[in-house]
Amino acid sequence: MLSQRATIDRVFHALGDPTRRAIIEKLTEGPVSVSMLAKPLDITLAAVVQHLQILEKSGLVYTRKVGRIRTCRIEPRGLSVAEQWIGDRRSLWERRFNRLGDLLAEPDGK
Amino acid sequence: MLSQRATIDRVFHALGDPTRRAIIEKLTEGPVSVSMLAKPLDITLAAVVQHLQILEKSGLVYTRKVGRIRTCRIEPRGLSVAEQWIGDRRSLWERRFNRLGDLLAEPDGK
Repeated sequence: MLSQRATIDRVFHALGDPTRRAIIEKLTEGPVSVSMLAKPLDITLAAVVQHLQILEKSGLVYTRKVGRIRTCRIEPRGLSVAEQWIGDRRSLWERRFNRLGDLLAEPDGK
Repeated sequence: MLSQRATIDRVFHALGDPTRRAIIEKLTEGPVSVSMLAKPLDITLAAVVQHLQILEKSGLVYTRKVGRIRTCRIEPRGLSVAEQWIGDRRSLWERRFNRLGDLLAEPDGK
């Protein structure tokens, strides 16, 4: 099992690429085959397959081959990992910011 | 003004690097100077400055120089951009998933 840190690294590395985010955006409309995915992105099938491997390893996309057709769909687990990391950072920062506000609101010496 | 797409690209590119995420994690504890930031990360000051430039351009970090000391703090705007992109993808996907559930729950032919 991957450590939490390694999982976060993989998810953010995967999301760091604009083509991979375009793949995720397309897949939020519903599952599609690899060749259908390659068409509007204007990249080779081999490039799409490489991006999909990274997305699949990071838990952002799930692919399944039936016969000769490989179909892809969103895997919400990966999105949750990124969402939680960002949410945690924001809430930690806001808590610190609010504490600072409380301190500034206190009368001198209290 | 940067387009929304360019802003999203910059934020996710910035978050894709583990050292830059470590900088953000450190800054959620509170503002620090650039040299204080470099110390626990075990990288050169020049490397930290480069990472900070990317983080600042993407709206994730704010830096301010007073005298010879440059201090850095979290800029929550950048985190919100990433949070919203992920949240939108997840809610679009969930809506689609729920619609599918409704369709499957319907009696045949209705």
